[in-house]
Amino acid sequence: MGTMAKMDHRPETSRSRTRADLLTSTSELMIERDTVDVSLSDIAGRARSNVALVKYYFGNKDGLLIALIERDVAGAIEGLERLIATDAPALVKMEHHISGLLRTYHRFPYLNRLVRSVIRNSSSEVSRGIAQRVIGPIGQFYEALIAQGVAEGTFRPIEPMLMYFSAVGACDQLYSGGGILKAVYDVDEIDDGLRRRYIAHTVALLTQGVLARPALGSD
Amino acid sequence: MGTMAKMDHRPETSRSRTRADLLTSTSELMIERDTVDVSLSDIAGRARSNVALVKYYFGNKDGLLIALIERDVAGAIEGLERLIATDAPALVKMEHHISGLLRTYHRFPYLNRLVRSVIRNSSSEVSRGIAQRVIGPIGQFYEALIAQGVAEGTFRPIEPMLMYFSAVGACDQLYSGGGILKAVYDVDEIDDGLRRRYIAHTVALLTQGVLARPALGSD
Repeated sequence: MGTMAKMDHRPETSRSRTRADLLTSTSELMIERDTVDVSLSDIAGRARSNVALVKYYFGNKDGLLIALIERDVAGAIEGLERLIATDAPALVKMEHHISGLLRTYHRFPYLNRLVRSVIRNSSSEVSRGIAQRVIGPIGQFYEALIAQGVAEGTFRPIEPMLMYFSAVGACDQLYSGGGILKAVYDVDEIDDGLRRRYIAHTVALLTQGVLARPALGSD
Repeated sequence: MGTMAKMDHRPETSRSRTRADLLTSTSELMIERDTVDVSLSDIAGRARSNVALVKYYFGNKDGLLIALIERDVAGAIEGLERLIATDAPALVKMEHHISGLLRTYHRFPYLNRLVRSVIRNSSSEVSRGIAQRVIGPIGQFYEALIAQGVAEGTFRPIEPMLMYFSAVGACDQLYSGGGILKAVYDVDEIDDGLRRRYIAHTVALLTQGVLARPALGSD
């Protein structure tokens, strides 16, 4: 390795493996250090690669970060598209979606911070592109979901944009807590038990929260 | 100004005004730039002061950031303590608390990110101290509130720690959105109308979400 010429002549499988390794290394460093600020040289070092190769595959650091976001959300966005197309009731779709969102943040606890950081620090044109590819599908999902739930009589009418912020915030906060869990609650890590309790709690809170008829005053 | 000796000899009112101006300047810069990363020299410049004075009043940058957090949460923590001591039903306390939390984030949109950043970047002893002073009271509030609501029969039994993360995340996300509002929803700023809709929406979502008896299947 080491020069562009050499890179170009390596077999296709080896080249795509290097690209994938660079993304994996970035993801692992962000998880270990609990921050989205990691240097290109640390990333290259961990992938046993070099900064020139990062630039070869991704153009620059922003290109790498955007590719990581797209890698991380790909499965979730496909899942959303499958979910909205099923004929399940809106409440069931909502439960699936919230538990899916939590599983995504559990796997990639830096993801929400990374999306926000890249959108904030990019030019408005690049921001808009990322936002539309990555967040657009969730926004459209909420629009379709709430319309369906209201039509079925199970959901209150809710502004989809506001529901987007509530759901993402409620799901993400445990994962972008930055030491709160340890400092306030003396919890060292988000283990499997806590993960399951948070999923059950958040699904119950948010789905009950959107229901058309609160129990209040009904008995 | 300029030397420690001169600072010490200025009248008390003028000295505390300088201290307050430094905090105000830090807060304003964080709001304008939508980030908690602001340099001491920018802060001093805006306050028409200098870095030596920052060190005189706060010891170092962490000292300034901790003082800003304590300034920003002081009113909210007093409010919480008054609220928990009243004899209002738990559901009413919850509504007051959620709208108060949203008003705090509206005034200081960087606050949640700043608390997390300071806790993450400080030694574990300093972290624990800040966490206990700043987040401890909210944690205790949720414990008392949920116990009261369950005793009154209006709340489901909910783990207070999980409710803390849900509520803070749902309230904060609009404010730490970092350009999402513009890039996805083409909304330029959180004006008074959006602020009010977000309060009404979040209060309804979270209070309905904790109710003991969901309407589901009841009619």
